[in-house]
Amino acid sequence: MSEAIKTDVLIVGAGPCGLFAVFELGLLDVKVHLVDILDKIGGQCAELYPEKPIYDIPGIPMITGHGLTESLLEQIKPFNPTFHLNEMIETVEKIGDPGFRVTTDAGKVFECKVLVVAAGGGSFQPKRPPVPGIEAYEGGSVHYAVRKMEEFRDKDLMIVGGGDSALDWVLNLHPLAKRITLVHRRDDFRAAPHSVEQMRALVASGQMDLLIGQVTALEGEGNVLSAATVKGNDGTVTKVACNAMLPFFGLTMKLGPVANWGLHLENNLIPVDTGTFETNVPGIFAIGDINTYPGKLKLILSGFHEGALMAQKAVKYVYPDKRVVFQYTTSSSSLQKKLGVN
Amino acid sequence: MSEAIKTDVLIVGAGPCGLFAVFELGLLDVKVHLVDILDKIGGQCAELYPEKPIYDIPGIPMITGHGLTESLLEQIKPFNPTFHLNEMIETVEKIGDPGFRVTTDAGKVFECKVLVVAAGGGSFQPKRPPVPGIEAYEGGSVHYAVRKMEEFRDKDLMIVGGGDSALDWVLNLHPLAKRITLVHRRDDFRAAPHSVEQMRALVASGQMDLLIGQVTALEGEGNVLSAATVKGNDGTVTKVACNAMLPFFGLTMKLGPVANWGLHLENNLIPVDTGTFETNVPGIFAIGDINTYPGKLKLILSGFHEGALMAQKAVKYVYPDKRVVFQYTTSSSSLQKKLGVN
Repeated sequence: MSEAIKTDVLIVGAGPCGLFAVFELGLLDVKVHLVDILDKIGGQCAELYPEKPIYDIPGIPMITGHGLTESLLEQIKPFNPTFHLNEMIETVEKIGDPGFRVTTDAGKVFECKVLVVAAGGGSFQPKRPPVPGIEAYEGGSVHYAVRKMEEFRDKDLMIVGGGDSALDWVLNLHPLAKRITLVHRRDDFRAAPHSVEQMRALVASGQMDLLIGQVTALEGEGNVLSAATVKGNDGTVTKVACNAMLPFFGLTMKLGPVANWGLHLENNLIPVDTGTFETNVPGIFAIGDINTYPGKLKLILSGFHEGALMAQKAVKYVYPDKRVVFQYTTSSSSLQKKLGVN
Repeated sequence: MSEAIKTDVLIVGAGPCGLFAVFELGLLDVKVHLVDILDKIGGQCAELYPEKPIYDIPGIPMITGHGLTESLLEQIKPFNPTFHLNEMIETVEKIGDPGFRVTTDAGKVFECKVLVVAAGGGSFQPKRPPVPGIEAYEGGSVHYAVRKMEEFRDKDLMIVGGGDSALDWVLNLHPLAKRITLVHRRDDFRAAPHSVEQMRALVASGQMDLLIGQVTALEGEGNVLSAATVKGNDGTVTKVACNAMLPFFGLTMKLGPVANWGLHLENNLIPVDTGTFETNVPGIFAIGDINTYPGKLKLILSGFHEGALMAQKAVKYVYPDKRVVFQYTTSSSSLQKKLGVN
């Protein structure tokens, strides 16, 4: 286990609400680390609708999810938060009053005074492909993300899918793997045309295989694969040697490990106090789409408001002896100094 | 009394919270009129800090009060609200369940289902100059705003002050008034230089008078003035014939008539339910700086959130039989049609 990273506040989720919470906490001199299961900053905005326009952010008649993420990153730049992407928080253990030890699925450990759950609809988790018995190989030969490329060196690797993730990993892992077989249900790829061209060139020169069809069966011992059967759209059945598999079937939203942190839940949402947005566990707050209270609307704008009120309570846990005076960015030169504009 | 203007919702206050409430109500097909005591849209943002930067609007690293007002006006353009500026709401009478008849100090009458108080710190009201007994002439010869220029025709008019309002009315009323005397406490004017030059030219050519000093006494009968005494900075005392006076000493914030609408108040703030932002009177809502609830922060961003939740309850009063489905601007083509973007 690695040495614990100490921080005032740990935010679970780097979507717009988590990002703006950094701003409100930063104005109060509270330091923040953020963890997100996605490999990029921006949450649903970045994952589900990076290029779609949003019309209901107050004061911004139109902005894309990507644009909103960029603007928020610029706004919180003075507070220099640390991001831990592509990681999921697994366990939360109480070690203070308040105080928490938090571990991620990548083995990182955080110690924080305050935990803010800003996890939107929950964790984006990879969709499991409809292959009988595939669960048995998860954690062994079947992976839904690449953590270390070296793990795939000299493997008979099957990559399944037709999007950017599938094609990018075909191209990136091709130099390392013994042999790559790409399986996709039709001979038409959503991935960037340039990646598709490169893949087709590798297939044409015999450096990798492409099968159009579906994986119908797996063989192996314990969680270690030895072969996969692919049924082609033309009816042919091919058995392929395979000791590593990367299926890329997109993401689905699940509540995930949050369910095990001792928080009350109502329909997979976390009830909060509307004065502080604190949960039933003192020191753990929930803001944005993941919380619930009378009148709750799943609007980005509401998550921003919730983050502002949360910060006023969180700062009391971080600096129990400091008297916090509420100030405005428009008139306070001390806040303007923190923002680097004065 | 003029014929009543009928509207779904009447919003008291055209500051940022009132403006964004138009957006949230508009998405739900609710029509809005707004009344503001100021002569311009934007509330405190426009009146107190039009050019000062604001840093804490989420997703906007920096914007001026004027810029925020402009952006909000663009955002609500599709809903085409009607503004009634330079008017103060005086009385609110219950005529339905809910339903209100509302009158302004300009004699306008509104009939609405829902009243939304978004009045910020209260009403901006003219400061009364420190002249003994001036109250007695208010509503008679002393006015703090010009409603109808004709009222000043052939009057011995004294205008008091050195800012833009004072100088603008000197120049505008000069052709109508019998004689204008401008009184200012020092021979230095905050008004636009061009206006000051024009005024000085009128004085130089004997078409009006300028006295540097202060009004120390008034004479008259009932609420009708006959003369004002001005003590000059050089010690001279001048008695000036005067049957109309316009003092322009700036604005101050007062709760104003809101105090008489039957709403519970706590320290001059209106307590609200945090699920709906409704007050103790069904059908009357309060959003923005004028409301209070546990955790309340006087942030523009919180007023935006409050407007969004208010709209969900208000629409039930406006369309009691309609089932309202909550939709997102990013994904709903019907909302996009209302916004004119689809």
